[in-house]
Amino acid sequence: MMKYNLKYMLPFVAVLFTACNGNNNVEEAKQKNTLLFPKGNKNTTANFKGEVWVASLIEADSLTQTAVGNVTFEPGARSKWHMHPAGQILLVTNGVGYYQEKGKPKQILRKGDAVKCPPDVPHWHGASADTAFVQVAITGREKGPTVWLEAVSDDVYHNGDKE
Amino acid sequence: MMKYNLKYMLPFVAVLFTACNGNNNVEEAKQKNTLLFPKGNKNTTANFKGEVWVASLIEADSLTQTAVGNVTFEPGARSKWHMHPAGQILLVTNGVGYYQEKGKPKQILRKGDAVKCPPDVPHWHGASADTAFVQVAITGREKGPTVWLEAVSDDVYHNGDKE
Repeated sequence: MMKYNLKYMLPFVAVLFTACNGNNNVEEAKQKNTLLFPKGNKNTTANFKGEVWVASLIEADSLTQTAVGNVTFEPGARSKWHMHPAGQILLVTNGVGYYQEKGKPKQILRKGDAVKCPPDVPHWHGASADTAFVQVAITGREKGPTVWLEAVSDDVYHNGDKE
Repeated sequence: MMKYNLKYMLPFVAVLFTACNGNNNVEEAKQKNTLLFPKGNKNTTANFKGEVWVASLIEADSLTQTAVGNVTFEPGARSKWHMHPAGQILLVTNGVGYYQEKGKPKQILRKGDAVKCPPDVPHWHGASADTAFVQVAITGREKGPTVWLEAVSDDVYHNGDKE
């Protein structure tokens, strides 16, 4: 049987250790991808529960009445029920989250998913319980601001298959 | 001086080789990020020059008259000059590209950039000469379809600082 003498092993262990640091780049890449768009500012309104970050990417104006924002929900964070008079489109750029329209089952959303929420339909969205969730929200502003409704109960958040 | 005998080195070289494959994950992550949204189908219209791929993420309907598409321009590919009656918003998800409005200098766009193109303003967009470019295009359809204009000349594409 081959005997490994430490004096022979050490240089290779050192090189191996250095090479393995390449794996850190994967984490860096993931982190960069999380930050495809700026994280923005921590939400301070009562419209969300948990830690939510919002960055405005495009503000609506008189010519283009569509606003685009990047919203990051930390695990467990969620919006209240709400509706948009001109509807909303969500594009998921990272993580795992939930989306539910009133009267329909809760959907699980993942990176790459796109959702269209029709005008005036009450809905909520947020992160899953153990994974953060990042979405681009595209919201028509031509028919007025978001209408905020009641909070999403823990029961609906966890088991929202009925309402 | 320490002497390295091949029989001692080989097992470590094998382990090192295996460990280094971790770096491939970076490439995989990059590739996955390039494919945040589907690449879709190769463009066959005359509205673009070079290889362009288009995937519809959200189609406009009577309630939500905003369409969202994922557009991938291979290096050197570009749109013709065109304009949108209800304007357009571009979100850059990967690569390096160009965007130019008529009468203004060409802008360089990179991952994470967001651009608002006002209604009825002639513009073009595309990849840089040596790097592909991936954008999410958010286009209002409530005032009619895109109006296509003339091709972008090589001179404007490469030196578009005047027009």
